[in-house]
Amino acid sequence: MDQSDLKAPTWQLSERARKLTSSAIREILKVTERPEVISFAGGLPSPATFPAERMREASDRILRDSPAAALQYSATEGYLPLREWVAQRYSINGAQIRPSQVLITTGSQQALDLLGKVLVCVDSPVLVETPTYLGALQSFSMYEPHYVQVPTDEQGLIPEGLTPELIKGARLLYTQPNFQNPTGRRLPVERRRALAEFAKSSPFPVIEDDPYGALDYAGEPLPTMLSMAPDHIVYLGSFSKVLAPGLRVGFIIAPEELIFKLVQAKQATDLHTPSFTQRIVHEVVKDGFLDTHVPTIRELYRNQCDAMLTALERYMPEGVSWNRPEGGMFIWVKLPAGIDTMKLLEEAVAQNVAFVPGAPFFASEAQHNTLRLSFVTVPPAKIDEGVARLGALVRAKI
Amino acid sequence: MDQSDLKAPTWQLSERARKLTSSAIREILKVTERPEVISFAGGLPSPATFPAERMREASDRILRDSPAAALQYSATEGYLPLREWVAQRYSINGAQIRPSQVLITTGSQQALDLLGKVLVCVDSPVLVETPTYLGALQSFSMYEPHYVQVPTDEQGLIPEGLTPELIKGARLLYTQPNFQNPTGRRLPVERRRALAEFAKSSPFPVIEDDPYGALDYAGEPLPTMLSMAPDHIVYLGSFSKVLAPGLRVGFIIAPEELIFKLVQAKQATDLHTPSFTQRIVHEVVKDGFLDTHVPTIRELYRNQCDAMLTALERYMPEGVSWNRPEGGMFIWVKLPAGIDTMKLLEEAVAQNVAFVPGAPFFASEAQHNTLRLSFVTVPPAKIDEGVARLGALVRAKI
Repeated sequence: MDQSDLKAPTWQLSERARKLTSSAIREILKVTERPEVISFAGGLPSPATFPAERMREASDRILRDSPAAALQYSATEGYLPLREWVAQRYSINGAQIRPSQVLITTGSQQALDLLGKVLVCVDSPVLVETPTYLGALQSFSMYEPHYVQVPTDEQGLIPEGLTPELIKGARLLYTQPNFQNPTGRRLPVERRRALAEFAKSSPFPVIEDDPYGALDYAGEPLPTMLSMAPDHIVYLGSFSKVLAPGLRVGFIIAPEELIFKLVQAKQATDLHTPSFTQRIVHEVVKDGFLDTHVPTIRELYRNQCDAMLTALERYMPEGVSWNRPEGGMFIWVKLPAGIDTMKLLEEAVAQNVAFVPGAPFFASEAQHNTLRLSFVTVPPAKIDEGVARLGALVRAKI
Repeated sequence: MDQSDLKAPTWQLSERARKLTSSAIREILKVTERPEVISFAGGLPSPATFPAERMREASDRILRDSPAAALQYSATEGYLPLREWVAQRYSINGAQIRPSQVLITTGSQQALDLLGKVLVCVDSPVLVETPTYLGALQSFSMYEPHYVQVPTDEQGLIPEGLTPELIKGARLLYTQPNFQNPTGRRLPVERRRALAEFAKSSPFPVIEDDPYGALDYAGEPLPTMLSMAPDHIVYLGSFSKVLAPGLRVGFIIAPEELIFKLVQAKQATDLHTPSFTQRIVHEVVKDGFLDTHVPTIRELYRNQCDAMLTALERYMPEGVSWNRPEGGMFIWVKLPAGIDTMKLLEEAVAQNVAFVPGAPFFASEAQHNTLRLSFVTVPPAKIDEGVARLGALVRAKI
């Protein structure tokens, strides 16, 4: 066969690309798009919470009043009024955030990519929680770090675990203090203070990734580490969980020196986040809309969380444990040792119910008997039905 | 001073971030935002060409008819109807493009970042034109390649220049055959055929970056290399120059094997391009709008190009040369040897006229007496005035 007939070119890929393998989970979860599947797998916010009508009005106004600016190339740093809004909103408890500390990103996922670009070299140590957010592992892995897991307990990251040996040479510490994905855990105030103090003299940045912070069911958010050390914490925020994820608008708050480098990296990555979607977000949030909107999301998710906790009590056999989240979108479930949730998923999907196995959330030494349940996309009656099926499957294994 | 008082943390950056230095040009060009400056520097499409009213109607329809889907997370590959539209539009001259060969990107700049991620390792050779698109150099540089310049002449890349010694170990060849940024050159058909043939048996991909292809003034586009080797060329397209850049919607057409890897890399980079902006683009283009819209852009740019060519004839002294573009947005000017356009820019800005010096467009061995003029943002009368000032500055140097 002549080489020119080859349909599939065999081009040499980068080392990082060769390491990318098709995710077994992704393959299994493809079937969860079937309408008959009750999926606790997705981290999709409920579309019932999207303020579509407000967005429609905002889009209309923007394209009528300032079409040239909304449709033109714009500054890599982001739309200035939105940066100012973010700076003001996060200037609380005496902390002063300057607009120059804010970079708008194409979703929070891009913030992770940019931090990887700017901070991580091949084999450099990156500190993550045990377990940690899978999407962060995916982003940082593009820059081929060496992951170091920081010890955690039921309350999240243990600051005392950051021993000199453990943190040696680290380029960053990545943490989600609020309703962590995947465990739903919230870091207590004292630990936040300890970590903020650590950040003040740390030779590497502490990343406070906070997509779920606004979703605390009691409406009593704990102070952010950013508010405790506004010139030392790198804070990642997102409009995905409080407005809508499909707009892909997030932000980084960081010391100007780092923002400066992140802006250069972002310029090489996508020039800027779409001018139009940034303006839509600003138009929707600028007059205090989130203060009335977010409580409705909290209420919805709290009810669905309750429904899932009730169902877990009802259907899960002895030996299965889970946490009771105070906010967010996820419950973390631990099955008796020996049950591999990756195998369980295949059986579950055959029964038209889905979840995400826990193993991929560990940078190393995975706990194979864990799984993540999301309660935000499925209505309460379906939650009961889905958990009942899962409970029966687990019961059959004990 | 106590360490915790330090305002500016001194965190260790990645090697690639340390190499990023503030661009001298960027600093000088910041002043071009002053309204009194006649700027030939920007590559900004004329806002007069943005179909704002159509976009407003499209946004309105989308948020009324399918708000949940337009505002929700969506597939990394992109919005399927838009991928299908792209596949159909590029299935010409007997070439068949499948929707599975299309990945929607957050602007064409992101396509460059993803290709760098998936193909480039530290020190791996990357082939570029002499000169080449600055934004591509910025993207690929994040992955720390070793650049190799391919010889060019007035017609663009010289295929015979791709000798075995020159291409040894290369990971990709990057080229803009249509109205190249910065030179405005168009690659002749015979050279396209030669490059397409080369691509069919090349051990690395040939990247055909084509943001300006639709902007040929005669409305007689030359065939793409993609149409000559649809299973071997990696083609980058964009809606920035034919609709509006502020939406940040572009696409890659490539063999499925590469698309598969690019999708994984994109997932780690920004999950997906905003669902809403993808749908706006599809809604606007699906019924053939570009076929009537693009000719109006061509007409506008051709007139402005003519105005600039006339002004150059009128005001530039002997010893200055430039090309006559058949399309696109740029004219490439060569001054007598010894005139450094970086220094000239400072003087020009003092006279309220701006351009981009040519040196940064060279991967190495820069020609310091070159500069790039864009004629698309400035109206004809201002073009004449600006070129007159530039001409006087150059004349004073000879």
